[in-house]
Amino acid sequence: MLRGLYPGRFQPFHLGHLNVVKWALERVDELVVLIGSAQESHTLSNPFTAGERIEMIRMSLKDIGLDSRTILVPIPDVLMNSVWVYHVKIHTPRFNKVFARNPLVLRLFREAGYEAVMPPLYNREKYNSTMIRKLMILGEDWSDLVPRVVHDYIKEIHGDERLKDVAGSDK
Amino acid sequence: MLRGLYPGRFQPFHLGHLNVVKWALERVDELVVLIGSAQESHTLSNPFTAGERIEMIRMSLKDIGLDSRTILVPIPDVLMNSVWVYHVKIHTPRFNKVFARNPLVLRLFREAGYEAVMPPLYNREKYNSTMIRKLMILGEDWSDLVPRVVHDYIKEIHGDERLKDVAGSDK
Amino acid sequence: MLRGLYPGRFQPFHLGHLNVVKWALERVDELVVLIGSAQESHTLSNPFTAGERIEMIRMSLKDIGLDSRTILVPIPDVLMNSVWVYHVKIHTPRFNKVFARNPLVLRLFREAGYEAVMPPLYNREKYNSTMIRKLMILGEDWSDLVPRVVHDYIKEIHGDERLKDVAGSDK
Amino acid sequence: MLRGLYPGRFQPFHLGHLNVVKWALERVDELVVLIGSAQESHTLSNPFTAGERIEMIRMSLKDIGLDSRTILVPIPDVLMNSVWVYHVKIHTPRFNKVFARNPLVLRLFREAGYEAVMPPLYNREKYNSTMIRKLMILGEDWSDLVPRVVHDYIKEIHGDERLKDVAGSDK
Amino acid sequence: MLRGLYPGRFQPFHLGHLNVVKWALERVDELVVLIGSAQESHTLSNPFTAGERIEMIRMSLKDIGLDSRTILVPIPDVLMNSVWVYHVKIHTPRFNKVFARNPLVLRLFREAGYEAVMPPLYNREKYNSTMIRKLMILGEDWSDLVPRVVHDYIKEIHGDERLKDVAGSDK
Amino acid sequence: MLRGLYPGRFQPFHLGHLNVVKWALERVDELVVLIGSAQESHTLSNPFTAGERIEMIRMSLKDIGLDSRTILVPIPDVLMNSVWVYHVKIHTPRFNKVFARNPLVLRLFREAGYEAVMPPLYNREKYNSTMIRKLMILGEDWSDLVPRVVHDYIKEIHGDERLKDVAGSDK
Repeated sequence: MLRGLYPGRFQPFHLGHLNVVKWALERVDELVVLIGSAQESHTLSNPFTAGERIEMIRMSLKDIGLDSRTILVPIPDVLMNSVWVYHVKIHTPRFNKVFARNPLVLRLFREAGYEAVMPPLYNREKYNSTMIRKLMILGEDWSDLVPRVVHDYIKEIHGDERLKDVAGSDK
Repeated sequence: MLRGLYPGRFQPFHLGHLNVVKWALERVDELVVLIGSAQESHTLSNPFTAGERIEMIRMSLKDIGLDSRTILVPIPDVLMNSVWVYHVKIHTPRFNKVFARNPLVLRLFREAGYEAVMPPLYNREKYNSTMIRKLMILGEDWSDLVPRVVHDYIKEIHGDERLKDVAGSDK
Repeated sequence: MLRGLYPGRFQPFHLGHLNVVKWALERVDELVVLIGSAQESHTLSNPFTAGERIEMIRMSLKDIGLDSRTILVPIPDVLMNSVWVYHVKIHTPRFNKVFARNPLVLRLFREAGYEAVMPPLYNREKYNSTMIRKLMILGEDWSDLVPRVVHDYIKEIHGDERLKDVAGSDK
Repeated sequence: MLRGLYPGRFQPFHLGHLNVVKWALERVDELVVLIGSAQESHTLSNPFTAGERIEMIRMSLKDIGLDSRTILVPIPDVLMNSVWVYHVKIHTPRFNKVFARNPLVLRLFREAGYEAVMPPLYNREKYNSTMIRKLMILGEDWSDLVPRVVHDYIKEIHGDERLKDVAGSDK
Repeated sequence: MLRGLYPGRFQPFHLGHLNVVKWALERVDELVVLIGSAQESHTLSNPFTAGERIEMIRMSLKDIGLDSRTILVPIPDVLMNSVWVYHVKIHTPRFNKVFARNPLVLRLFREAGYEAVMPPLYNREKYNSTMIRKLMILGEDWSDLVPRVVHDYIKEIHGDERLKDVAGSDK
Repeated sequence: MLRGLYPGRFQPFHLGHLNVVKWALERVDELVVLIGSAQESHTLSNPFTAGERIEMIRMSLKDIGLDSRTILVPIPDVLMNSVWVYHVKIHTPRFNKVFARNPLVLRLFREAGYEAVMPPLYNREKYNSTMIRKLMILGEDWSDLVPRVVHDYIKEIHGDERLKDVAGSDK
């Protein structure tokens, strides 16, 4: 059995992320979706808690019947970059292949002996977490950039209003 | 929808734990299995990594068709006991009901406004993680105390040998 | 008895802060003055130690006879924003009402069930810690922006010179 | 002006502690009561939060009119023993004299250039925090070992019941 | 060039340790002496600071002309056992071979692909740090269990008196 | 015997650093080279691990016969600036004199009672770690700004390529 690893922060989980999951699941049997910076929330870069991100991703994958082939694992940041790969290994089921676009992430996993591949870009300008958070702060429309269930969930927990409050804080 | 929370360390996941999961799933629609002390491994009390514990529990639940109704969430210890409940809230999807036997855990969740129930004892002398780890160290038989897939997995990763080495260490 | 909470970093404690304390003590019987980022000092944003800030605030309040109605509590930062309110609860005597201007702080306390009110602005351009620290670095006059005892204390411990050294450091 | 420092954990604050405060205040003008292990609570050795301990001590000192001459400062543990004295210096107003019975504490402050004196024993078998916590767990009488206001406060917050739950927990 | 690694806490550095260094240097060109628990001092198990241990070991090795073939590296503990080997790799020059007696240390380095050998026992009852610390506390003779320069250094810094104070402390 | 302390991050160790070491060793018998931010690596400001920096500095000093008069000590950052001097004291052999150019570092050591001197500038525009890292990222020539052995070592471990990957990462 082939198992892949797909690390990200998913703040929030959008259609570009969903596309990578589908692309990866054509190449492996199961995929570990690694939810990074799990300890963070209520900041400009990380507005959503790990629990909220688990809910978003789980609902999106259940919706298209991919939940049984994915394993969601939240992971806190580690202070030392150089042990990050080993930190990941400890927190996840075994995996054979890594899906990432960040050149340092690719290098770190390759140096540790993993096969690491770069999934194709999927309209990066549009499907981009930083951009989506900006639209939320500005009160503009972001509804068609994320799966419908993610949109409804964020609205339900008033996630976009929380982000506006964070943006309005001095600190 | 009702969602429960079941915290534990699962070092290792045994038939007593499996029984609690089944008992809880007769009372809620979904269950968050919270894998505590996620940062620990290779010690007498915590021989298995969070990743290994995710594999054990996932295989056990897949085996009896309960995996789609459970959500596995590893969580590191927090230094301050008194914020533990809030630490848990942040790392997990929303839940309504807590299943635990530890009186302090019950008190902390009740003080935070949760319904917390104590599942019935299920042959505690036999199905007991501390006892199972002792049997591993002594090289005695523990195979019928855990789900078959857990037994085979621990043997495959030489988990019992690792625990013997930990027990034989000075430190 | 009504007890309020007033969080801040007080780097340094100035007349705007003093005004909030007075305004709050017209609304509650006692006020917890929460001295945040207690672990920080000798940096551009946090030049003074927690101990120095306790001295400044205590002298200012003694001077106008308000010390017996206030409780000074230093508190270190917590890594996770989302547990901050609970971290505060643990470190302070019970309180009923929160005084703050930061929208995220107001939101976090309100979500946790507290009454949180925004004290009126008091010449923010003038009475502003960031501005006062800038004046110290530039060697300009800041003496009438803080209580007289605070001015004398900072001069006595050479606090303004320390800040200039910090500003002159590469790191 | 002479200012003393009196470090302790005060779990809970008892009549022996109160006696040291009085004894010290005959020798210095003001006393910093340093509440150690501020991050701890809900454990066998540290059942009460820092906030609760501040309340206990403040009420006891108000009761006998000594509150205006004391400064309560909670302080979290530091991982490195050897920097503890400097950690204390940073978190407290300046002090000249230390009151302690622990020989290591005396040594550390003396090596750092402080005058450190050992207050006389005051019926140590009776007025002893460990003993009082044991009596609470056993449900025996401890009411005359602490100031009356401390007794009433602990009863009000169900502190003795909390400690029994902690004692009854597996972990 | 062959480089070895010799991990220990060296509390204090004794003749048994010195023997391992000599034995190892017959098998490798250079040896990294890894001084563990570098953040600890002033406790029963770790009375000496990392700096003091560097002095002890350096003087002992200079004394017999081995200092130029050894590299002393202090290293703080890491919270997660399972990343310890990688934590070591990051803090030390490259090495090919590990010298250790602890079975878990041997297992961890072997699992990470290193050659790990167990040096022969050298009168373990006599040359044993725990025993030497006990003799110091009891005020008995330990002078011939450590290199002469280590004895003189510990006496000079009053290290044995410090340990007695630690032993006499309540905490 | 006079021993000096020279703190730095040495990312990487260049000819300006080497010059300070020589200048200091004309004034003291031995020099502790303190390698700061030891826990960092694989970032824009701190590309090299502590172990790699030890190798660089050791080879450079061996090359000119100064290794026996220097002691290399890696030290992790401490969260509280104000205890940094004491943190340093604990991790290093005793020293009498500090060599530094940073005004805050000079102030902190002087306040703690040390003699602290500022070594002369040595072509700061040219011999400057930030500048050297920029040249590495841009793929321009930096070979004559560091000791030859440092250049060869960085090339051998592909350190410049690692830095380019770090620079090309989103995070």
